[in-house]
Amino acid sequence: MTTKTIMVALGGNAIKSADDEGTAAEQFANVYKTSRELVKLIKAGYRLVVTHGNGPQAGNLLIQQEEGKRLVPDMPLDVVGAMTQGQLGYMFTQALGNLLRAEGITTPVAAIVNQVRVSPDDPDYKDPSKPVGPFFTKAQADELAVSRPNWKIKQVKPETVEKRFRRVVASPQPIANVEVDVIRKMIDAGIIVVASGGGGVPVVEGKDGLEGSAAVIDKDLAGAKLAELIDADVFLILTDVSHAKLNYGKPDEQNVGEVSLAEMKELAARGDFLAGSMGPKVRACMKFVENGGGRAIITSLDHAFEAITEGFGTQIVG
Amino acid sequence: MTTKTIMVALGGNAIKSADDEGTAAEQFANVYKTSRELVKLIKAGYRLVVTHGNGPQAGNLLIQQEEGKRLVPDMPLDVVGAMTQGQLGYMFTQALGNLLRAEGITTPVAAIVNQVRVSPDDPDYKDPSKPVGPFFTKAQADELAVSRPNWKIKQVKPETVEKRFRRVVASPQPIANVEVDVIRKMIDAGIIVVASGGGGVPVVEGKDGLEGSAAVIDKDLAGAKLAELIDADVFLILTDVSHAKLNYGKPDEQNVGEVSLAEMKELAARGDFLAGSMGPKVRACMKFVENGGGRAIITSLDHAFEAITEGFGTQIVG
Repeated sequence: MTTKTIMVALGGNAIKSADDEGTAAEQFANVYKTSRELVKLIKAGYRLVVTHGNGPQAGNLLIQQEEGKRLVPDMPLDVVGAMTQGQLGYMFTQALGNLLRAEGITTPVAAIVNQVRVSPDDPDYKDPSKPVGPFFTKAQADELAVSRPNWKIKQVKPETVEKRFRRVVASPQPIANVEVDVIRKMIDAGIIVVASGGGGVPVVEGKDGLEGSAAVIDKDLAGAKLAELIDADVFLILTDVSHAKLNYGKPDEQNVGEVSLAEMKELAARGDFLAGSMGPKVRACMKFVENGGGRAIITSLDHAFEAITEGFGTQIVG
Repeated sequence: MTTKTIMVALGGNAIKSADDEGTAAEQFANVYKTSRELVKLIKAGYRLVVTHGNGPQAGNLLIQQEEGKRLVPDMPLDVVGAMTQGQLGYMFTQALGNLLRAEGITTPVAAIVNQVRVSPDDPDYKDPSKPVGPFFTKAQADELAVSRPNWKIKQVKPETVEKRFRRVVASPQPIANVEVDVIRKMIDAGIIVVASGGGGVPVVEGKDGLEGSAAVIDKDLAGAKLAELIDADVFLILTDVSHAKLNYGKPDEQNVGEVSLAEMKELAARGDFLAGSMGPKVRACMKFVENGGGRAIITSLDHAFEAITEGFGTQIVG
């Protein structure tokens, strides 16, 4: 039995398929499908720390807050992020726990509420670009400029002809995982930990200690930071494609297999990974290996086990 | 330095004052006030496990869900409960962490998502009585009888002349804390744990393992169960009064001080604690002592330290 630690970062499709409405039943079904693949790794003796995105869940809460704002004070983005950690932490705890118990495995599972520290001077605060929550019409956007003076509203790719405005927030770089000490102790105690959900609740150092920030941290970058801090052997990003690709979408498209950090840097500099949201995943993997990590992998959920045991997928080594 | 473990159950007023609107700033202010009292105990060397109610927070989410239901699928009550564990777990983690760091104390703090098992045959499922979420008019209640066939709507004490209907759910007895193993390991690792928030996410044993139930577990009873399972030395309920009272509201009203379990049973049988929501707190304390706990205490937040160090408040001993 190995005791290697794998930090797994789950993409949005691990929880919500593109054509899902977003009901709890759909989310649970996806979480179970994902958890079944993770259980294969746990059965093989790997220690897992699991992180996940929260875009659709946070988006839905923001829509509900906007709809209910005449009746109920809405919560700031840090609190909304914490709520999605509760929601998805619960779903993963329940699914992983049930699947493990069905196999007679007693490894405990727990999700923690997890803050991630960012810098208030992060350049992204000056020109925020991460869209969150509902789409608005021009008239709504004008109204929000008055009623929500601290919101930044930008014109984005429209949802409908009328609705083409959206709130944008900063997406600062993760500096530290506030509860890393707790996570380390939990790993040492043999617990499968769900942490840093949605990229972590973003906090900055204020005059009285940490305080929440209205931002969204990239979950792969936050996962890479946590993988580094817990000395994970592998940082595994599970997404909807089996490999990062060169010449993406062109006739000579080609899978990237095992490459060195230096090679990956060269490929990344060519700009191939910008399309299809692969860019941030590649950057997160490079960061992990750059900071001393042994191996970072990008592959699809159904190839997770082969990726770990047979070297399948895009693998970046130090 | 003592290493006694105290299981603390915080009442609603620990997070929301009666005249609060319920903004995040107000909630944080209350959580800080509460946490300052808890830090005194941590400084004195006690290990704490903290639980809290979630009534106003879950209620607000249910109102927002109802307002946004044309746009976004609403989450069932188990998921809503998990969301409030994220929200309040975050607030307590941040406040306790900041206050401890300001004192140079490095004890780690973490909140976990926590399921509590109940029986699907609990009698409360047959005649649910716990009101949750928004108030409805007669017309709305009639509409909901069609659109939400699995909801049970009852006439309750009205909010306004028109709005006198509300959804009611079961409040089953807690049988087991699903993550108790994790909580024990965290306590052993010196972590201050926030757990069983809102009475825990209620789950029942289904055919494929645990599944969420649309119920609300009493947070004091769930806290007493957890206190028992972790072998806490003291179960401490912090509420808005300094003592449970005999002849409550009458001219000969009298504080209950230190009493034996047998004495408390006798007093409870007289029915004095039914008024003012003291009944469930007294029952939770008696349950803890009955199941082998050494001491259960009911007092107000500002007397927490004296209650532990000087025997202040209502104290039930085995």
